[in-house]
Amino acid sequence: MKMISIVIIAVTVFALTSCNNANTTKDEPVGAQTEKELIFERGDKIDSPNFTGNAWLNNLVTADDENQNAVGSVTFAPGARTSWHSHPAGQIILALAGVGYYQEKGKLVEIIRKGEVVKCPHNIPHWHGASPDSKFIQVAITGRENGPTAWFEPVTDDEYNSYINNKDKNK
Amino acid sequence: MKMISIVIIAVTVFALTSCNNANTTKDEPVGAQTEKELIFERGDKIDSPNFTGNAWLNNLVTADDENQNAVGSVTFAPGARTSWHSHPAGQIILALAGVGYYQEKGKLVEIIRKGEVVKCPHNIPHWHGASPDSKFIQVAITGRENGPTAWFEPVTDDEYNSYINNKDKNK
Repeated sequence: MKMISIVIIAVTVFALTSCNNANTTKDEPVGAQTEKELIFERGDKIDSPNFTGNAWLNNLVTADDENQNAVGSVTFAPGARTSWHSHPAGQIILALAGVGYYQEKGKLVEIIRKGEVVKCPHNIPHWHGASPDSKFIQVAITGRENGPTAWFEPVTDDEYNSYINNKDKNK
Repeated sequence: MKMISIVIIAVTVFALTSCNNANTTKDEPVGAQTEKELIFERGDKIDSPNFTGNAWLNNLVTADDENQNAVGSVTFAPGARTSWHSHPAGQIILALAGVGYYQEKGKLVEIIRKGEVVKCPHNIPHWHGASPDSKFIQVAITGRENGPTAWFEPVTDDEYNSYINNKDKNK
């Protein structure tokens, strides 16, 4: 019976180990993403004063005379976010993976989850990024017909943490 | 030893069975998609003469004064496709899953795979859909500023099968 027990333990450990990769793709840190989870390549690391923390951009479509929309996939590491900014022709954000934050000036921070969509109005200052404990991958669709994005000040830690600090006020 | 063999077989069968769901999400028929694979809900079955085969639409964003783009996730079952059509303000297609077909009038059928992007020019008749052996999930971004989509005749089986029949001509 001892021999049988050893065999059961060995095969079970093997089974659990071989399942592991397939079962841990959700909400892993960015570095541990699997090919299966990513739809678009992560792209290049963003080196810009308009971002706080680590983020990556894959420019999928450049705006031109044929189509005035720019489309990009942005991956935010946990805690990373844009500065406050606004778009003269608005923006549409599609949440592809993870858990993100979105806030318009004067409103509370909202959670954005995989599969959700946000429509940012024209010229309204806002910011978006990852939540503290999860990466966030978004596709942003930005009309360029009225000019470039206007960038403002960085999102402070107090602003960023207001979702956690104001949880009772959030719906 | 006979007892050990039975235990090994039993535990191995259990292990393989319990891994099965996690390892077969890629390129399964639409009905077998897992929650993990879907980013957006599949939406409603399309009941329209402008589609051949089974397809589903999830309207993610409706065009309005705030943003002239309509965004929708379309899931095509293997073999399903749109009719020929054109967009007065063009269209951007983001391939989210599976293997699709795309063809502009007068050109060869192209394969579109997960992670690839197609920019359809203004007023150029084209069609898109799934390949014969795989579903195809796309997000379509369609500008409504110049009016609605113009719909033409269905894609015939000869047109649809031209990718397979002309494989030597395809790059």
